[in-house]
Amino acid sequence: MAVLPLGAVEQHGPHLPVSTDLVTATEAATAAAGAVAASGAASVVLLEPLAYTKSDEHAGFPGTIWLSWDTLMRVLIDVGRSLAASGITRLLFVNGHGGNSALGQVANRELRRRFGLRTFFAHVATPRDQGGVPASGAEHGLGVHGGHGETSLMLHLRPGLVRMDLAERRVPEDLLAYEQIGFGRATSFGWLSSDFGPEGHIGDPTTATAEAGKELFEHAVEQLARTLVEASRFTTPADGAGALGARDRA
Amino acid sequence: MAVLPLGAVEQHGPHLPVSTDLVTATEAATAAAGAVAASGAASVVLLEPLAYTKSDEHAGFPGTIWLSWDTLMRVLIDVGRSLAASGITRLLFVNGHGGNSALGQVANRELRRRFGLRTFFAHVATPRDQGGVPASGAEHGLGVHGGHGETSLMLHLRPGLVRMDLAERRVPEDLLAYEQIGFGRATSFGWLSSDFGPEGHIGDPTTATAEAGKELFEHAVEQLARTLVEASRFTTPADGAGALGARDRA
Amino acid sequence: MAVLPLGAVEQHGPHLPVSTDLVTATEAATAAAGAVAASGAASVVLLEPLAYTKSDEHAGFPGTIWLSWDTLMRVLIDVGRSLAASGITRLLFVNGHGGNSALGQVANRELRRRFGLRTFFAHVATPRDQGGVPASGAEHGLGVHGGHGETSLMLHLRPGLVRMDLAERRVPEDLLAYEQIGFGRATSFGWLSSDFGPEGHIGDPTTATAEAGKELFEHAVEQLARTLVEASRFTTPADGAGALGARDRA
Amino acid sequence: MAVLPLGAVEQHGPHLPVSTDLVTATEAATAAAGAVAASGAASVVLLEPLAYTKSDEHAGFPGTIWLSWDTLMRVLIDVGRSLAASGITRLLFVNGHGGNSALGQVANRELRRRFGLRTFFAHVATPRDQGGVPASGAEHGLGVHGGHGETSLMLHLRPGLVRMDLAERRVPEDLLAYEQIGFGRATSFGWLSSDFGPEGHIGDPTTATAEAGKELFEHAVEQLARTLVEASRFTTPADGAGALGARDRA
Amino acid sequence: MAVLPLGAVEQHGPHLPVSTDLVTATEAATAAAGAVAASGAASVVLLEPLAYTKSDEHAGFPGTIWLSWDTLMRVLIDVGRSLAASGITRLLFVNGHGGNSALGQVANRELRRRFGLRTFFAHVATPRDQGGVPASGAEHGLGVHGGHGETSLMLHLRPGLVRMDLAERRVPEDLLAYEQIGFGRATSFGWLSSDFGPEGHIGDPTTATAEAGKELFEHAVEQLARTLVEASRFTTPADGAGALGARDRA
Amino acid sequence: MAVLPLGAVEQHGPHLPVSTDLVTATEAATAAAGAVAASGAASVVLLEPLAYTKSDEHAGFPGTIWLSWDTLMRVLIDVGRSLAASGITRLLFVNGHGGNSALGQVANRELRRRFGLRTFFAHVATPRDQGGVPASGAEHGLGVHGGHGETSLMLHLRPGLVRMDLAERRVPEDLLAYEQIGFGRATSFGWLSSDFGPEGHIGDPTTATAEAGKELFEHAVEQLARTLVEASRFTTPADGAGALGARDRA
Repeated sequence: MAVLPLGAVEQHGPHLPVSTDLVTATEAATAAAGAVAASGAASVVLLEPLAYTKSDEHAGFPGTIWLSWDTLMRVLIDVGRSLAASGITRLLFVNGHGGNSALGQVANRELRRRFGLRTFFAHVATPRDQGGVPASGAEHGLGVHGGHGETSLMLHLRPGLVRMDLAERRVPEDLLAYEQIGFGRATSFGWLSSDFGPEGHIGDPTTATAEAGKELFEHAVEQLARTLVEASRFTTPADGAGALGARDRA
Repeated sequence: MAVLPLGAVEQHGPHLPVSTDLVTATEAATAAAGAVAASGAASVVLLEPLAYTKSDEHAGFPGTIWLSWDTLMRVLIDVGRSLAASGITRLLFVNGHGGNSALGQVANRELRRRFGLRTFFAHVATPRDQGGVPASGAEHGLGVHGGHGETSLMLHLRPGLVRMDLAERRVPEDLLAYEQIGFGRATSFGWLSSDFGPEGHIGDPTTATAEAGKELFEHAVEQLARTLVEASRFTTPADGAGALGARDRA
Repeated sequence: MAVLPLGAVEQHGPHLPVSTDLVTATEAATAAAGAVAASGAASVVLLEPLAYTKSDEHAGFPGTIWLSWDTLMRVLIDVGRSLAASGITRLLFVNGHGGNSALGQVANRELRRRFGLRTFFAHVATPRDQGGVPASGAEHGLGVHGGHGETSLMLHLRPGLVRMDLAERRVPEDLLAYEQIGFGRATSFGWLSSDFGPEGHIGDPTTATAEAGKELFEHAVEQLARTLVEASRFTTPADGAGALGARDRA
Repeated sequence: MAVLPLGAVEQHGPHLPVSTDLVTATEAATAAAGAVAASGAASVVLLEPLAYTKSDEHAGFPGTIWLSWDTLMRVLIDVGRSLAASGITRLLFVNGHGGNSALGQVANRELRRRFGLRTFFAHVATPRDQGGVPASGAEHGLGVHGGHGETSLMLHLRPGLVRMDLAERRVPEDLLAYEQIGFGRATSFGWLSSDFGPEGHIGDPTTATAEAGKELFEHAVEQLARTLVEASRFTTPADGAGALGARDRA
Repeated sequence: MAVLPLGAVEQHGPHLPVSTDLVTATEAATAAAGAVAASGAASVVLLEPLAYTKSDEHAGFPGTIWLSWDTLMRVLIDVGRSLAASGITRLLFVNGHGGNSALGQVANRELRRRFGLRTFFAHVATPRDQGGVPASGAEHGLGVHGGHGETSLMLHLRPGLVRMDLAERRVPEDLLAYEQIGFGRATSFGWLSSDFGPEGHIGDPTTATAEAGKELFEHAVEQLARTLVEASRFTTPADGAGALGARDRA
Repeated sequence: MAVLPLGAVEQHGPHLPVSTDLVTATEAATAAAGAVAASGAASVVLLEPLAYTKSDEHAGFPGTIWLSWDTLMRVLIDVGRSLAASGITRLLFVNGHGGNSALGQVANRELRRRFGLRTFFAHVATPRDQGGVPASGAEHGLGVHGGHGETSLMLHLRPGLVRMDLAERRVPEDLLAYEQIGFGRATSFGWLSSDFGPEGHIGDPTTATAEAGKELFEHAVEQLARTLVEASRFTTPADGAGALGARDRA
């Protein structure tokens, strides 16, 4: 089984480095893979992380380096093809950037169908709109980018890169007026970080602490380690990959 | 504001027609748009539905006509470009097929960024892995395709197309053994319907009734109508679409 | 054998709805398939129509939703792949929009070569530049969009959607000065509807009547029904699809 | 105004060289452009011909070098972009290969829309399915590839490359049994040359003569010269290219 | 073995025709293939040249017709697929345009991997940044486009197309100040001809003579003939093309 | 100015890790950027390296993860677009993998033309076929992959990852029989590592030492540091990027 961390290089507001998601994904995947290897519960190959991913919601902000949906899918397909040719049969994405979640689901299925890989997509922190629990109640579930959670994680992992002196609360509380539409609501909406103001973050980093980050990180690593073990033995009633003809794989 | 129903033409097990998702999306969108128009709460243009969408998880089953991720994204982008050129500023997808959810999120953002459209993505029935409540407890949240919910909806909307005599329970209860991975769990997995057996459905249609379908449908229409009204007045603190240069839209 | 109606959603001048070609293609294909099924002369599967197709000549007019040549070809290829995987061996396009004709020929061959399908491309009304007879002599063969023929068809099929009070004659008679170049002449030219003025139609809808439309429609259905029967038994001296290796299909 | 000959490199049966269509298109375009230049009737730039085009119907026959629909369209778009950037405003394709006709129509419009070029598509010999008159009655309109007409043209233009000793009649007369479907009939069909047998030609080259070829060639050149003059002054009631916004050109 | 001349249609300064690279590649390939055929040393098929190639560095100059990297690669892949299907096993590119060199290397490998072709890429005159010796010392190795060498070649091959009265020295001697970066230096740089001024050429055509051109041409032909013979018998320790599975060829 | 290390994850024979090129590119770029920053000679942003690049010549070997030419170009274009939008005006690639050289040249120009970036492409060790001096005379210039040079570099940089016990000499001396064709010869050839045998490396690692690696590395860093300084002030006689219209950038 292979584990591929998905990072991002993108603006995270004035207080966080552009490598935030790359750091969290790589650190969490490394720790989880290490724990699993140490326990002997599964055999895992930790791949080099993808640094540049789908950060189109931050396009136009200095420091954001984004791949289009098309480019990233092609990268993931090429990686999947290569892994299958190398004898890998299971692949777990460990994702640090919420903007990759949707395309990651698409890749999950594409790699299953075309290369027969058993694929899994896990988050360092499950995004709010994927059923995740908000990291901080004071953000009302609106801290989706550079808020309490991510800032805490970075205070734990890379305190030297965090500028708490520049951290400001940017919680779009007006969104609470909607019942159907919103982060984690039944109806999603297409947003850009510039829809929320010029700073680029959405959330409240001012409450972040290294202690909270440590707790979040350790919880994430523990969940990922459990996921790794489950993924190594996960089966379905049938293995449908073999049922497809070449045309269906095209 | 425009409303675009997203259907599918794909196998739904031996008991349901291939047009199931097209029927439910079109019927629900039509009813909701009609209700909103009747109330005068918002001005809505109901677009022709997309019949063929991303049904790659059912590739190889007779009756499934599927577009690749690449093709469907191009279709959605072309539609978005056309709508923007026609003066439309808001677009709500009403989706009847769970397999479209992930790519729909990608399109949501792409159309927002490239064309400045305010975009929204709603489900006739929120999929389990998007936080939706299972339609039937007896399916243990595993009724994701052709199960109690969809079969009930079709018994209500197109009873003549349902073959209850062919309906059989196909609930992959073994999945309950996993804690991290599964439908609606923190870690998703890439699945094909052939991973669950040769019939193609995943769930328990045997408990379906027209009454349950009527209730599900009326609830969906009510939610969609509310969503339409919200979407017509939805704003964010800033309108970031105008902040992007031409290069970022590319 | 499968039948795929190709419609369009595009401006048709101030007097016709944007769904004109979708209506005519769907109605004609449905009637022809019904007649053939009733006669038992051939076994036919009527597919969901493609509503959005190649309407690039009307790009920029409100109400036009167009797919690029690239997108539409990918859609047709995906549909062809799916049909072949479902056991379908023959496919007839029933086309209501002249702007699809050329790409349809390309698809005809591509699906034959790649998937071995026997493919056929028929028009509800053969376009002037494909050898078709003009629907009205008073248009001098220049009524190619929203003129006498299409307006008559819609007066027959959807009279409530036709605004004859807005119908105006827009026949580009200056084109008659050319002998080599023109609609249906030896040399074709690349045109946009905006090359002919701001209204968007090209022809004379003022002479249209429901009676003429009924006659056109019944003739079209009769021709299509004959075509369906012929297509179900059409053969060539050899079946070259089997002679191709995998590389040639790529 | 620019003139672009479209040739082909493809099998033409055992008796004709693979360069047949390249020779006829280049010779005819050169002669016509020369005649027009000599008369001073129009200012023409004769471009280097495209040797390799869309010969997918002959894929798998030795000697055929074919571009896919996708590749050829991209070539034509790149050429159109370059011409527009060079100050060219009108472009006439002179086509020697019937298999290019459909895609050429697509390109005609694409280059008009995207680059504002006035585009025209002419044939050395109008194909039967574009309203052309058959070159020989004895072929019953079925001599579409390597038959009487093309062989005669080559006997006139490149007699040393024609092997009349290998010429054999291959007229698929069974096609005459169909009324709706066929070459030049109302309904076209997707064909490969291997659908008609292993030799690769479709028609009767045995009746070809250099005299008939001379007559065909001179007629073609005369028609093309007239077309060039017409194309140099061709206008429509409006010039719609300027009416499009950047988004519609995309 | 097949030989494919790669020309270009692009500005070459005011003194040379746009067809310069097409002329030199075609003439040199033809002469070399002729010499080899005459000697019986190898069996060679001379293909029609590609006239339009990757001239993006001259985009925007009138007369330049350029294909994008993407388009040209697709053309080369389609040609390679066709050749392999025709039974060709070796392919030599004879390149007259420096701007094709890099993409040609990419194609070299792609055609080897996907179609098993033994591929070779030769230059009429090895570019300075590929280790070639400058044609004229007076240009300090900076005569990369339309300078002494190319002008001399054209004075030899097509004297009637050269306008020596318009030839001016345009040698960017400032580049000599750099040690690491430059034409033929360890670090290459991305340049456009407009980076060097409005005329479009880079070098000194004023020293060109037909005699020098004759010498260059004959040397090139001699080298190409030797290359052809070597290529016809070139082997590596193993033939790795057969070792790849279908997935690796994708 | 930005610096982007281009690594690779690919087989390097039995004695070297798959990350060899990623290690060398990243280490050399980091050291060079650090030296330049320390000297204050130029302002440099060191970007996250690209781990996965164009390793198609090693496709099918376990451990190779390769991007196609198409995918990698799209990645480089997306990165270039993002950098330009972030205000970066100069970009230096520091390449550790010879298989990237050709495509890197293509990207060099594409990013210059489309985004106006001044682009530069440097090698950690200039490949033999780019004019580089062989790292070891005993390899006769044939040590292109996993030979003396790379192995020495890794013995210096990551001795713990080198398995000298598995190192074997694999020098394809038969290539010396060719004069025109070969690594660093006038005519290049398309090769796969499987063309040279099953182990995957081409060269002689048995002579490698950490001392030689240290010398190679320090030389590379010194050259790169000089290149960085040169690149930061490199100019051409004109800045042609501004001369291009939007169409030429497309």
